[in-house]
Amino acid sequence: MNIAILFGGSSYEHEISIVSAITLKKVLKNANLSFIFVDSNREFYLIESDNMKSNYFANGGYKKAKKLILKQGGFAIEGMFGLKEQKLGVVLNLIHGRDGEDGKMASLLEFNSLDYISPRVDASVLSYNKLYTKLYAQSLGVKVVPYTLLNSDDSRDVELEYPVIIKPVRLGSSIGVSIVKEQGELDYALDVAFEFDNQVIIEPFIDGVLEYNQAGCKTDDFELSIIEEPNKEEFLDFDKKYLDFSRDAKVMDADISDELRAKIQDSFKKIYGTLFEGSIIRCDFFVVDGEVLLNEINPIPGSMANYLFEDFSGMVNRLIKHLPKENSIKIDYSYINSIQSAKGGKV
Amino acid sequence: MNIAILFGGSSYEHEISIVSAITLKKVLKNANLSFIFVDSNREFYLIESDNMKSNYFANGGYKKAKKLILKQGGFAIEGMFGLKEQKLGVVLNLIHGRDGEDGKMASLLEFNSLDYISPRVDASVLSYNKLYTKLYAQSLGVKVVPYTLLNSDDSRDVELEYPVIIKPVRLGSSIGVSIVKEQGELDYALDVAFEFDNQVIIEPFIDGVLEYNQAGCKTDDFELSIIEEPNKEEFLDFDKKYLDFSRDAKVMDADISDELRAKIQDSFKKIYGTLFEGSIIRCDFFVVDGEVLLNEINPIPGSMANYLFEDFSGMVNRLIKHLPKENSIKIDYSYINSIQSAKGGKV
Repeated sequence: MNIAILFGGSSYEHEISIVSAITLKKVLKNANLSFIFVDSNREFYLIESDNMKSNYFANGGYKKAKKLILKQGGFAIEGMFGLKEQKLGVVLNLIHGRDGEDGKMASLLEFNSLDYISPRVDASVLSYNKLYTKLYAQSLGVKVVPYTLLNSDDSRDVELEYPVIIKPVRLGSSIGVSIVKEQGELDYALDVAFEFDNQVIIEPFIDGVLEYNQAGCKTDDFELSIIEEPNKEEFLDFDKKYLDFSRDAKVMDADISDELRAKIQDSFKKIYGTLFEGSIIRCDFFVVDGEVLLNEINPIPGSMANYLFEDFSGMVNRLIKHLPKENSIKIDYSYINSIQSAKGGKV
Repeated sequence: MNIAILFGGSSYEHEISIVSAITLKKVLKNANLSFIFVDSNREFYLIESDNMKSNYFANGGYKKAKKLILKQGGFAIEGMFGLKEQKLGVVLNLIHGRDGEDGKMASLLEFNSLDYISPRVDASVLSYNKLYTKLYAQSLGVKVVPYTLLNSDDSRDVELEYPVIIKPVRLGSSIGVSIVKEQGELDYALDVAFEFDNQVIIEPFIDGVLEYNQAGCKTDDFELSIIEEPNKEEFLDFDKKYLDFSRDAKVMDADISDELRAKIQDSFKKIYGTLFEGSIIRCDFFVVDGEVLLNEINPIPGSMANYLFEDFSGMVNRLIKHLPKENSIKIDYSYINSIQSAKGGKV
């Protein structure tokens, strides 16, 4: 299978996307891979496989690679005799955060008629925004962590039961996120969060809450990963998250009851629905008093959560055969033609 | 002001977008206009002003126009000596329906760093989908018409009080929409709607409901149009809608109480919020028992609802000075560099 891994982007998670891509190169070693880098100026570069080392990007070495133009039908290289189309296969969108997860990359690929593995534009917009994620989940009957929404120009005089966790509404990762233990710390934490977004979500911070991650996708049917009980630290800071994105070692399936497992899997399937077809996502759930609550959707998890799957490479192969197709729309100008004939061709 | 009107697209409303663009050419006669056509294959063409006649598109004459490539920084023409960037000014997205209103065009313009008038990607996705529009409005405390959601694989054995109106969840315009007066007609209407989408919304059809349209945008402050009481026909069929998109004659302000006017304006402002900054939208409201209900959001109304504004051209000029700007994200490779130095540059 020919797969082009698309990574980088104008995103706070630019660097971890590079790490993710280097990891997937190892994991998908039996595929015929190409690598398309989006630099911080949003220029596309075709990266030689041998150059897939983090240093090559950090020191600007990539600027000597061939630039790509994304046009109708695919990526092309600008050459002496015009644009030359490159046959790179199915694009795997591995840009974390802005550009990759906010719907932009899905739009670019869809508009230009490329086959791609990624949440589609609507799935991206709903999962990139923590408020919309909650509205979407609730509309499906999936419970969410209760929350207060605050706009940057709202009064900060809100009644809260501490501790709380403050999150910018957009952005993946833990950027701008703080745990606030008492009211005295609230103002500063809001200042930090509002640096990244004009809306924040405030949730109760539940110390030691049971947390379970479920990844999966839909091919002939759902293909679900094992359930992971992630690291119990308060939350991953950027350095730890960075290392987290380079994971490729398998983890243990969580030791939970069949009933809880079924509830988590059922919630995952509801969320995935038809909206996330074409993508491999990870949902992070909390369990409180035996109830499963959606914490967040990772529409493009680090290194695609490969370490949670028995046969990741085979699943990617199957997913490629089950990518959603746009309806084709036939444009025959029948309305213009009928008006033309009524008006003697003068409009 | 330099404005590039972007129109056409792979959309059921391709033809009415052409009509819309021809109308705006008349309305914005004092601007320095360019015209960018997106054909049914999603190729971009730069159209000479003199060729802005509907026949030119219907008979394929546009294929002789210069092709454009959308790349980082703007549109370019492929020439003998490579791609030559065109300075066309602010893009006004006038693609109705798919491509224009579903977030794709906003994504393409945002990613490639163009200034543009259009709902942004998240605003597009929320308003293109009638279910998400309802969830969004309700989250703001704006009432909506009650509804039943049906997936294409759901049982059709639903209890309804007839008459009802059936709408595909996506698509603008009236395509796939039917009024169903009794249960015997339901199956066929659902078949029609499911041809266009895998989800449909079923709403009570309220004969003779009071309907009011409010358009507007935000510059220094909100700039609201007059309130229109639209045509009272059951709903506009495609031919009538087509003519509707070529409107440029002013209409009368609705004869309603100050209280109702204030309620409609207040609901409009809530919906517009910060989400729709950078766009001129029209919200269609129903009034039932004195209550204002959102019927739908038109994120790119026909000919931009120019006929509802006192000074449309001046408003567009002011809006151009108030387009939202993306945060810039600085990428300094500090994490990769710190890992490199810890590992002696070997990753």
